[in-house]
Amino acid sequence: MNTSKPHEIDFLKSALEKESEVNSVDFILDWLRRKNDQVRTVVEQVPLDKLDKWSFDPQTGNIVHQSGRFFSIEGIRVETNWGKVPFWEQPIINQPEIGYLGILTKKIGGILHFLMQAKIEPGNINLVQLSPTLQATKSNYTRVHKGKVPLYIEYFNGEKAADILIDQLQSEQGARFLRKRNRNIIMEVPESEDLPEYDNFIWLTLGQLKKLISHDNIVNMDARTVVSGIQYGKVNDHLLNPLLKGDSSLNDFDDIISWITKLKSKYELNVKLIPLKSVANWGYDGLAYNHHEGKYFSVIGVRVEIDDREVVSWDQPMIRPAQEGLVAFIVKEIKGVYHFLVQAKVEAGNFDILELAPTVQCLTGNYRKGYNEYSVPFINDVLSASKEQIWYSARQSEEGGRFYMEQNLNMIIEAKNDFSVEVPENYCWATLNQLLTFIRFNNYLNIEARSLLSAVII
Amino acid sequence: MNTSKPHEIDFLKSALEKESEVNSVDFILDWLRRKNDQVRTVVEQVPLDKLDKWSFDPQTGNIVHQSGRFFSIEGIRVETNWGKVPFWEQPIINQPEIGYLGILTKKIGGILHFLMQAKIEPGNINLVQLSPTLQATKSNYTRVHKGKVPLYIEYFNGEKAADILIDQLQSEQGARFLRKRNRNIIMEVPESEDLPEYDNFIWLTLGQLKKLISHDNIVNMDARTVVSGIQYGKVNDHLLNPLLKGDSSLNDFDDIISWITKLKSKYELNVKLIPLKSVANWGYDGLAYNHHEGKYFSVIGVRVEIDDREVVSWDQPMIRPAQEGLVAFIVKEIKGVYHFLVQAKVEAGNFDILELAPTVQCLTGNYRKGYNEYSVPFINDVLSASKEQIWYSARQSEEGGRFYMEQNLNMIIEAKNDFSVEVPENYCWATLNQLLTFIRFNNYLNIEARSLLSAVII
Repeated sequence: MNTSKPHEIDFLKSALEKESEVNSVDFILDWLRRKNDQVRTVVEQVPLDKLDKWSFDPQTGNIVHQSGRFFSIEGIRVETNWGKVPFWEQPIINQPEIGYLGILTKKIGGILHFLMQAKIEPGNINLVQLSPTLQATKSNYTRVHKGKVPLYIEYFNGEKAADILIDQLQSEQGARFLRKRNRNIIMEVPESEDLPEYDNFIWLTLGQLKKLISHDNIVNMDARTVVSGIQYGKVNDHLLNPLLKGDSSLNDFDDIISWITKLKSKYELNVKLIPLKSVANWGYDGLAYNHHEGKYFSVIGVRVEIDDREVVSWDQPMIRPAQEGLVAFIVKEIKGVYHFLVQAKVEAGNFDILELAPTVQCLTGNYRKGYNEYSVPFINDVLSASKEQIWYSARQSEEGGRFYMEQNLNMIIEAKNDFSVEVPENYCWATLNQLLTFIRFNNYLNIEARSLLSAVII
Repeated sequence: MNTSKPHEIDFLKSALEKESEVNSVDFILDWLRRKNDQVRTVVEQVPLDKLDKWSFDPQTGNIVHQSGRFFSIEGIRVETNWGKVPFWEQPIINQPEIGYLGILTKKIGGILHFLMQAKIEPGNINLVQLSPTLQATKSNYTRVHKGKVPLYIEYFNGEKAADILIDQLQSEQGARFLRKRNRNIIMEVPESEDLPEYDNFIWLTLGQLKKLISHDNIVNMDARTVVSGIQYGKVNDHLLNPLLKGDSSLNDFDDIISWITKLKSKYELNVKLIPLKSVANWGYDGLAYNHHEGKYFSVIGVRVEIDDREVVSWDQPMIRPAQEGLVAFIVKEIKGVYHFLVQAKVEAGNFDILELAPTVQCLTGNYRKGYNEYSVPFINDVLSASKEQIWYSARQSEEGGRFYMEQNLNMIIEAKNDFSVEVPENYCWATLNQLLTFIRFNNYLNIEARSLLSAVII
């Protein structure tokens, strides 16, 4: 199988380049801070039934926009033989369109640079975060509604020349979105291209991006998922650290495919759209749509006002989590190569039953109560990790256009020496190269796993 | 990316071995003929409302089994922006369980042999065809219903030791089944294993199987799809013919992924289950469920009686096509390597919008009327091919448990020298190695493409 690209070397060179000649990491952080200071943003909660242009559909109780566009909050009834809960009902975001998450790149001084956008999203903890060059819905980019054309779209839709570096269909949060996917795309424009540089855009290298991902809430979820799709390929050995040596993996690639096939055959996931107002154990309290015991998340209404030279304002529903979650990979050196412990996880909104998730992913439960009260496998190994075991730890926001102040603790933990190589049926060890191979194909790695992998520095 | 297996060499050795020391191709053909002569099979059409244990559901008109098991015939309403028909309604087979299609293999005289079954299916044109060792529904293999245990199941469910050679989730006919998939699996038992050899089973090599696929209606669809998943991997150059040289492909692997991503983003496929009795333009004529103009296919009822020492009989609905179809790959040498022209095809029952299909796939239209009346791209290139251009041509049955006397002409045609390398947006050139890579991942190649690839002899 020959699947390597000539571009891989360029990617790697950029990845290893810690500082750009164009902008330093400190400059970028400062630039973002200034962007944040310059803009006045007000986000206030309003009752869902008082939202401008949004309403409860009289028949279904679904929360819909008057145009029928954007997205809607609907109900689902879920039946599955995975996990301990055989059926439940919940609200979910239904947004069937495939959007663009695109990053433009260009060689500057011989090094590939990424054009990132300082973007305000109402749900972001730091309101302004680094985002892809382009975030566009299908209505945007096909100009169905003749609205404002997104900046730089011409490099993504073929109107202007650019090389495709990656172009993958990737999933969103399966616990919150119904089968939502985006097109994750990186384009390279010729060095000679005189790219317009708009006010909220900045050039940085992949190495700098990864450095910034180690900070809390600087690089947004959309940027992290696009970056996670980058392959490092086969390069000279001296450039490689053991993360990329795929040849001595514990599990053969086809064995991992077989493991996935077996679990997809074993587990059933039946999801049916139902009216939001009929969702059991959830209801509207006059302000938000909540679970009766306050668990999981709420659907809230927000009024957003952004004053950035001109004032823009709108109302929208958002998802507010009940508490902070934890996503973590456990890694272990096996046969001289670092392996990631992945979990085959069924989530209600998954496109194809299950996706590969981090070792620990608890977004909705109160994991801090600890092992005994909330028995998530391997959570103790993560929470009790010593400083030396922690490769990576940062708080990262979920997509701030839909999720209100949702941040999760992202961690990569090296297992203790006595951590068993034997793992339960739903878990499997895979090398970074094996995971990066799966990422290229639709719906194998979930967004939480991809977000963590985006932080890996080789 | 290292994804090769130690087993590949064995596969190849078998593939190149034209005759087995155990049974010759002529013996196998004769053995199948005798099996066919020995068994008395009566398949007669009966009105759908007279079927034993099957009935029209009073509410929906769906055709269902009294146990709620097996499968049902339901209706779907389809909306898509692919092709020329933006919406339609049709009957479809709904069978949500994932079944096993499994072949047991074992080295005999150092050569890998495949244990194939002579299996009677009521819809087969040759009633008895070579089938996988195991064809089992989930109810069978999980023994939910405590029925007869399928032969050899113990080698597939882990009860007895065997190595997994391939284990993939593969799609069925998207025009007839709603998102149906099967687990395609090949196991290798140790040479020392004293495998029981039952009456209707026979050993043959992969080379022999492929030889038999060049005959009409000898190797059934289930066997062909399992065989199509076999990788040939990287072997010494002198063993390779240009089909497998992936290094000088016209399109980089990631370019093909990008092409798929783009089309999956472009095309929408909305499929909704509706009551069979409400399906527009279809109705029950007192015997079968037909399209009003007699197009596409009919749902018929059959009474089956098989007398093979003991008499077994049952009733069931089946799909009978309106006419014979055509599936064909066009291949062309480009940059010294043979490339297959694949089509991104949207079919109503597809799991993920589109799958890669043969260059020409017309199962439901009367393609013999020719180019002008029924304009299928590239059909003239196939129908006008000279003898020298035809690599492969055989009539092959669809799965005889669901499809009544359905056979399609399967062809692989080498393009004329002046055939353009430039192709329309929904078409793409790919090497055999690239296609075999996609096969390993879920829902990339459709069953018609896989059936054709199973015939390729390297």
